[in-house]
Amino acid sequence: MSLTADLMRTAEEYRASLRRMRPNVYKFGELIGDVTTHPATRRSVEGHAQVFDAAQKDEYRDILTTTSPLTGERISRYLSVIGSAEDMITNVRMKRLMFNLTGTCTGGRCVGFNAINSMWAATYDMDQELGTDYQSRLRGWLKGAQKEDIALAGALTDPKGDRSKRPKEQDPDMSLRMVDKESDGGIVVGGAKVMIAGAAAANEVFVLPGTGYKEGESDYAISFVIPRDIRGLTVVEARHPSDGRDMESGFDNPVEMGGITQGYLLFQDVHVPKERVFMAGEWKHSMKAVLNFIAPYRSAIGGCVAGQGDVIVGAAALMARANGLSEKVFREKLVQMTVNNETTFGMGVAASVMGKLHPSGVWIPDAKLSNVNKVHVATLPYETKRLAQDIAGGIAETGCLPSSADINSPVYGELLRKYLKAGIDGETRARIARLIEWLTIGEGVPGCMHGGGSPDGAKLMINAMADIETNIKLARRVANLKGDIPSPTT
Amino acid sequence: MSLTADLMRTAEEYRASLRRMRPNVYKFGELIGDVTTHPATRRSVEGHAQVFDAAQKDEYRDILTTTSPLTGERISRYLSVIGSAEDMITNVRMKRLMFNLTGTCTGGRCVGFNAINSMWAATYDMDQELGTDYQSRLRGWLKGAQKEDIALAGALTDPKGDRSKRPKEQDPDMSLRMVDKESDGGIVVGGAKVMIAGAAAANEVFVLPGTGYKEGESDYAISFVIPRDIRGLTVVEARHPSDGRDMESGFDNPVEMGGITQGYLLFQDVHVPKERVFMAGEWKHSMKAVLNFIAPYRSAIGGCVAGQGDVIVGAAALMARANGLSEKVFREKLVQMTVNNETTFGMGVAASVMGKLHPSGVWIPDAKLSNVNKVHVATLPYETKRLAQDIAGGIAETGCLPSSADINSPVYGELLRKYLKAGIDGETRARIARLIEWLTIGEGVPGCMHGGGSPDGAKLMINAMADIETNIKLARRVANLKGDIPSPTT
Amino acid sequence: MSLTADLMRTAEEYRASLRRMRPNVYKFGELIGDVTTHPATRRSVEGHAQVFDAAQKDEYRDILTTTSPLTGERISRYLSVIGSAEDMITNVRMKRLMFNLTGTCTGGRCVGFNAINSMWAATYDMDQELGTDYQSRLRGWLKGAQKEDIALAGALTDPKGDRSKRPKEQDPDMSLRMVDKESDGGIVVGGAKVMIAGAAAANEVFVLPGTGYKEGESDYAISFVIPRDIRGLTVVEARHPSDGRDMESGFDNPVEMGGITQGYLLFQDVHVPKERVFMAGEWKHSMKAVLNFIAPYRSAIGGCVAGQGDVIVGAAALMARANGLSEKVFREKLVQMTVNNETTFGMGVAASVMGKLHPSGVWIPDAKLSNVNKVHVATLPYETKRLAQDIAGGIAETGCLPSSADINSPVYGELLRKYLKAGIDGETRARIARLIEWLTIGEGVPGCMHGGGSPDGAKLMINAMADIETNIKLARRVANLKGDIPSPTT
Amino acid sequence: MSLTADLMRTAEEYRASLRRMRPNVYKFGELIGDVTTHPATRRSVEGHAQVFDAAQKDEYRDILTTTSPLTGERISRYLSVIGSAEDMITNVRMKRLMFNLTGTCTGGRCVGFNAINSMWAATYDMDQELGTDYQSRLRGWLKGAQKEDIALAGALTDPKGDRSKRPKEQDPDMSLRMVDKESDGGIVVGGAKVMIAGAAAANEVFVLPGTGYKEGESDYAISFVIPRDIRGLTVVEARHPSDGRDMESGFDNPVEMGGITQGYLLFQDVHVPKERVFMAGEWKHSMKAVLNFIAPYRSAIGGCVAGQGDVIVGAAALMARANGLSEKVFREKLVQMTVNNETTFGMGVAASVMGKLHPSGVWIPDAKLSNVNKVHVATLPYETKRLAQDIAGGIAETGCLPSSADINSPVYGELLRKYLKAGIDGETRARIARLIEWLTIGEGVPGCMHGGGSPDGAKLMINAMADIETNIKLARRVANLKGDIPSPTT
Repeated sequence: MSLTADLMRTAEEYRASLRRMRPNVYKFGELIGDVTTHPATRRSVEGHAQVFDAAQKDEYRDILTTTSPLTGERISRYLSVIGSAEDMITNVRMKRLMFNLTGTCTGGRCVGFNAINSMWAATYDMDQELGTDYQSRLRGWLKGAQKEDIALAGALTDPKGDRSKRPKEQDPDMSLRMVDKESDGGIVVGGAKVMIAGAAAANEVFVLPGTGYKEGESDYAISFVIPRDIRGLTVVEARHPSDGRDMESGFDNPVEMGGITQGYLLFQDVHVPKERVFMAGEWKHSMKAVLNFIAPYRSAIGGCVAGQGDVIVGAAALMARANGLSEKVFREKLVQMTVNNETTFGMGVAASVMGKLHPSGVWIPDAKLSNVNKVHVATLPYETKRLAQDIAGGIAETGCLPSSADINSPVYGELLRKYLKAGIDGETRARIARLIEWLTIGEGVPGCMHGGGSPDGAKLMINAMADIETNIKLARRVANLKGDIPSPTT
Repeated sequence: MSLTADLMRTAEEYRASLRRMRPNVYKFGELIGDVTTHPATRRSVEGHAQVFDAAQKDEYRDILTTTSPLTGERISRYLSVIGSAEDMITNVRMKRLMFNLTGTCTGGRCVGFNAINSMWAATYDMDQELGTDYQSRLRGWLKGAQKEDIALAGALTDPKGDRSKRPKEQDPDMSLRMVDKESDGGIVVGGAKVMIAGAAAANEVFVLPGTGYKEGESDYAISFVIPRDIRGLTVVEARHPSDGRDMESGFDNPVEMGGITQGYLLFQDVHVPKERVFMAGEWKHSMKAVLNFIAPYRSAIGGCVAGQGDVIVGAAALMARANGLSEKVFREKLVQMTVNNETTFGMGVAASVMGKLHPSGVWIPDAKLSNVNKVHVATLPYETKRLAQDIAGGIAETGCLPSSADINSPVYGELLRKYLKAGIDGETRARIARLIEWLTIGEGVPGCMHGGGSPDGAKLMINAMADIETNIKLARRVANLKGDIPSPTT
Repeated sequence: MSLTADLMRTAEEYRASLRRMRPNVYKFGELIGDVTTHPATRRSVEGHAQVFDAAQKDEYRDILTTTSPLTGERISRYLSVIGSAEDMITNVRMKRLMFNLTGTCTGGRCVGFNAINSMWAATYDMDQELGTDYQSRLRGWLKGAQKEDIALAGALTDPKGDRSKRPKEQDPDMSLRMVDKESDGGIVVGGAKVMIAGAAAANEVFVLPGTGYKEGESDYAISFVIPRDIRGLTVVEARHPSDGRDMESGFDNPVEMGGITQGYLLFQDVHVPKERVFMAGEWKHSMKAVLNFIAPYRSAIGGCVAGQGDVIVGAAALMARANGLSEKVFREKLVQMTVNNETTFGMGVAASVMGKLHPSGVWIPDAKLSNVNKVHVATLPYETKRLAQDIAGGIAETGCLPSSADINSPVYGELLRKYLKAGIDGETRARIARLIEWLTIGEGVPGCMHGGGSPDGAKLMINAMADIETNIKLARRVANLKGDIPSPTT
Repeated sequence: MSLTADLMRTAEEYRASLRRMRPNVYKFGELIGDVTTHPATRRSVEGHAQVFDAAQKDEYRDILTTTSPLTGERISRYLSVIGSAEDMITNVRMKRLMFNLTGTCTGGRCVGFNAINSMWAATYDMDQELGTDYQSRLRGWLKGAQKEDIALAGALTDPKGDRSKRPKEQDPDMSLRMVDKESDGGIVVGGAKVMIAGAAAANEVFVLPGTGYKEGESDYAISFVIPRDIRGLTVVEARHPSDGRDMESGFDNPVEMGGITQGYLLFQDVHVPKERVFMAGEWKHSMKAVLNFIAPYRSAIGGCVAGQGDVIVGAAALMARANGLSEKVFREKLVQMTVNNETTFGMGVAASVMGKLHPSGVWIPDAKLSNVNKVHVATLPYETKRLAQDIAGGIAETGCLPSSADINSPVYGELLRKYLKAGIDGETRARIARLIEWLTIGEGVPGCMHGGGSPDGAKLMINAMADIETNIKLARRVANLKGDIPSPTT
């Protein structure tokens, strides 16, 4: 046990901090009194608690923690500024690790982490260009956050409404906006952010623009950080597949130590004090903030799906055994699954290493490679899951077996357990089948295809960056083609 | 309205017949009193009821009904003997139609239909070879079944237990078996059949061997038909993704007119009278019965996934519109989805037409093409679903939006509805997102990858039938290669 | 040997007929004196000669011949009217057979065959609508062609020039056209048709419109049939991969009994007499002629690539053996190759059977399924070839071994033969490696991706025929979605 | 122009060095007098000459050169020891660059480069373990090679003969071997190495073991470097697709500044002096030498296929324009091609950066990621080429257009040029079509699928390194699965 670790929160301190917060999270029409124990949120909290637990362990410390240049102390990597390719690669590895440990997403940390970094660059640029003092505000807040070791979620996605209209051409609330500026430099915020990962498990939420804004849309160009239980903020948690099982006892949700929540954040006159405001109308800087968010996000998400893929490989091998077959029978499929895992991980690493340093000190991964990775993230895990179902057989394809209530029925449970037995006892086999279901078509499916933007958006960016003219020059040179060969305008 | 249709059941008569049956279906540890109204089973019953409704409609009558050579009357095609390539093609089209109408599987009819046909050939062969009278029994029962227009499920899959052991090398119940033969020719059956589609919605269940049996395993070579509520039979329904929503009100399960059940059938000393027994120990005929089952099943299932694919294409286009985008933006993806749908459908048709007539009068589709189709059924729909999620956006990928209870909350429902609005009002958009979720990662996912056998099994059959030696001859002839080129034995 | 076969040409009679023709075929800048012996064309002639040989054999007669309703005699199927689904399926099987026998394309027959059928329907429609007598002309010519048992090529593709301009907006010759109408009803033709398969091996060429023409473009709406050696026609044969080896001795082109030619036909004032003219300005009928050509072509081409795929499977298995490995090592890959072969074949069969009868008596395959098949034809064979190279190893990937001249060098040939030896003697192994090269990256590659139109064209047709609105209705009905959900116009 | 570059060879000095060598390269049964001018080899020499040219250019110098720790001088990177992740990444970039500049492989440099590095580690290990002095020999030779700036090929692949037998169980020459040891420490070598890239363009050849050898096979465990024209060595160049065109004038081989040769090296009593021998019987070190070769090779080859992919993208866009279409029409396909290019490049970068330093100072890329990359290299470029053909149309699919001799025919050349005209003049369009053919099915196809080992070999290595047991532990932990779940032994 190292000295520095003591300065960071334990998992239990983290849970306690959540219990101290004002209840403002709802699901199924009801207010959740304690997110650490309520069945709709406790698995997500437990997943995030593992971030704190693992940070205390020698084997994971270097991945989960780093030294803060602000304080010189060891801090959670999730609250750090990514200052080098190596930092960025460790970020990719951290995502893989956390999926390994929780089986799913701990999105209540990584979006916030990305947001800090995106705004670190943006505040620097704004200050340089406009003479603002945003970065010192951000630095001040971050120093405190590191000391308290808070869990920080991030909020990016606006409801948007009618996508064919600009924000001001429709109900102005369809994108989060500044409804008022206060005399002391604070702002008042209204509108909503939607599909926010892990808000229930977070102490604070870092908000940043969801898109690039234009002249006349400065009210939408805002970034700030707030306590998750701030007055005026309501969180409604979304459903996800099979989430009814969260509310049951038994093992039909087979994972207790990880889970997902995705929330809708409803802002009603939320007051944000000046020292927590990092953009307040500087629309010219909003697109760059988004791009600086996208590059690391789309790199690191390759680690996420690889990390879940690792668990899927393991679960598929276990299911084979439970069915009475050696996993060696499925060598070809397991290799393909491994290829998929290593590809999204490797592309994340490559995007990291081919990046460059922003003058603010933030390392920005390569835009082309990170968007290529997003395309893989939107396809390869689907093949991995299909192969897992292929290996696992009919029992796991859609979780085609009776509920744990039935398996433990005093009337016929004994018969079910007998008939479920194969390579292993019936209940264990049932639990493994539920795990495959959870990973491939159930509560563990993280939603990475559109998380941080859609694959079509990534393709647009690849197209924008694909250097067709340079490639044309290469082809012309190689075949010694003279004369002009213009693109037809038709 | 035609005269003949009057002789067939209406949907309401079908429901009434189910209500008259002895309750013996359980789920979540509890007995279901009335399968037609209980939330765990009523959607499946409603899906099957549409078979009766549609048979009354001019536009579907030729697909859903045919004329019985046994009675000369118009009967449900699900209770017919497939006598020609055309019949078999219509079977493929019928599967597509029923997925079109219910959004999912009405498996409580199609396995029974297949079983009739498989055993029609097997009983003929046994009678020819062994002098038995099985086909007249089958014919007698079938005539009655046609007159009553029953809903007939089928049961194929044994629990199997340890796959590395033969049935007699382990607990003998791990495959369904004859525990006694009665003096009057009836049999007593014990053991189980598992993952049986639509048992709750069926009046009777047709049982046939799940694999080829060997000498000394004659107790397992059995086929018979029983009322679903026969004494000694217990049905436990399996879970499927998000099935907790069945028990809720609201629209989070967005489909009321279709649904899946997969049951475990537990046999405890079930007595089957002679006239309902179609195989009782003739193990030499068990493998052929399975193969005759597989060929039409793996052909027709191409219609199933195409039929659901049609609905998925429609739902994806709707979601695009609801998001405020024209479906034309996604032309490339929609074409690929259509290619996938038409491929499994087309391969089913091709396997049908390249089949041959069994001496008993049953048309058996081509074995190689039907197994090739099974490989496609195990892959292409996964791409179709992925593309649907790609088009649909983050809101539908994992159904990432609040529950209908939240959307209708008196506290914040109005806000949610406002923020969900895009190309269409918020609740309709939410319902469409739920439909995408239901089709791609929810209750509507039918389990066709392993239904009727696994893709690896199909590949083994393709390998067995792939005519490598003939292909080698072709290659040798074309390149004029002389001399012996044997396969190394190592 | 049957009586009827005697009425048909033997292969030697076919060769003799070619030798009697005026030399008008060029390659490498030189006139080819005798196409049956010149190395640039003789393999293609030998491939086409096999059509005649095989028609004499009991095992192939039913595939390669049929009975003519015009004469009541047995004729080549290549000169028949496709009158039923069964005829069309046999067409698909015939294509597969001819690729089996020649290893590649005998395109000098199948395009002509398609052209007869397309124009059979078109002439019927024109006669019905316009009171012309085209079909009796076509019938008269066809009767004679059947009696003589000619080899008939087909010509469809116009040079087109600038694709953004209509034919009349540029050099008028860029699409084949009627430059004059003669008083006796004959026409004079100028321009060109390009990429015409097997012209060198053909006695006559059937010309039809390459696209749908509009008002004012009637000069382009022409169809007729001409002797391949007609005055004014020059044929220049295109290159294809490794075709330099045709001109060498040795075995580096390993196939003597099959080969491809693709020609450019240059028309300079070619006079076509009235009785051979089947369309002369009826532009309104040109598009339908094209569509009636496309449907059977894109169905049957599935048989082509399956037939070559069969040979590829055989060659890959042989190469494995020659390398000293059992083909069983590559079971998974061989199964995938078989799946690919059976898919394009099966989709061709399905498109055939789902077709419908044109009033003229021609069976037209299903448009959607045949275009779906075209998409597969443009992708699956590429995977098959890649897998063949994967199995075959480095020696065959690009034919990476010395020439036959080197292998037989008096200086070092013995050493090369020694080092090439593996599972089999060195020269045989070298020949098999050349066969793999020939099939996957050499002279045997047939050009099916764009033959008969591009895959993008097929996708456009699928999109046009994809019934999105119907699918939307299905999705709406299943989820009970009320109200209007229009497609945004933006 | 920098000073240091002066110390390196110019392209003309390189050509002169080749001309000074003893002619010992054969093709088509004949001795090649001057490899720099003979049509069978000059394009390959020109490709390799570009390595020297580009090294002189400011924009490429940092990629193509580095500073030698041996001499402190600027040297060709191809003659350097890879000492860091950054060096290795630059290697991947260098491969991409050289494919960009030549359109194809300059394999006469990269295998030699890999061999130096593999043996740098192996000689260190041998010296440490066995007290030999191999590394000082290697260092001595390398210093000289750097000063002379030689072109160094590498030779790895043994003929192997019957793959089911060990080397000594068959003709002992089937793997290259030491036939004698000389008293002065030199060795005499017999046997062969096959499929050696770029031997004709090389000054020297570095030989290393092709596989791991066992006890009793020490004669095969040899590594050394020789002048390519050493007495007793005969080189026979293999054929490759369409290589007959090399011998023609005209533009049917459209690329003059790059080209491939793959040779068979026949060793007859070749004497190698002691100071050029780096392994002579130390069989225990042979497997590690191979593995140290594989890791950087399979990383860097991702740069190769990306580099050719860049040219393919450019050529496809040019062909679209030449056909009269904007490349924007094909945006989706071009993006997919770009994704493929960036994936093999990115995975090469990732394997580089995740490597580790060998005690000898050589950086060894990550084994798992480099083998995953090999799987991509064996598949993705095939899709890229298919897409290029798809975009390019029928004219380019198989180079379906007349020869340049025909296009320039005095008789009909003018007509051909007229009809070939589309978006650009006829001859330029023809040249672009030939370039597509060259890149996708012609002389430019490099043979990367099996180069440096087969994809099946890569999958075996991935399987060996895939950490299934660790993944199983992750899955068990997440689902809290207790008890032993062993793999069935059956």
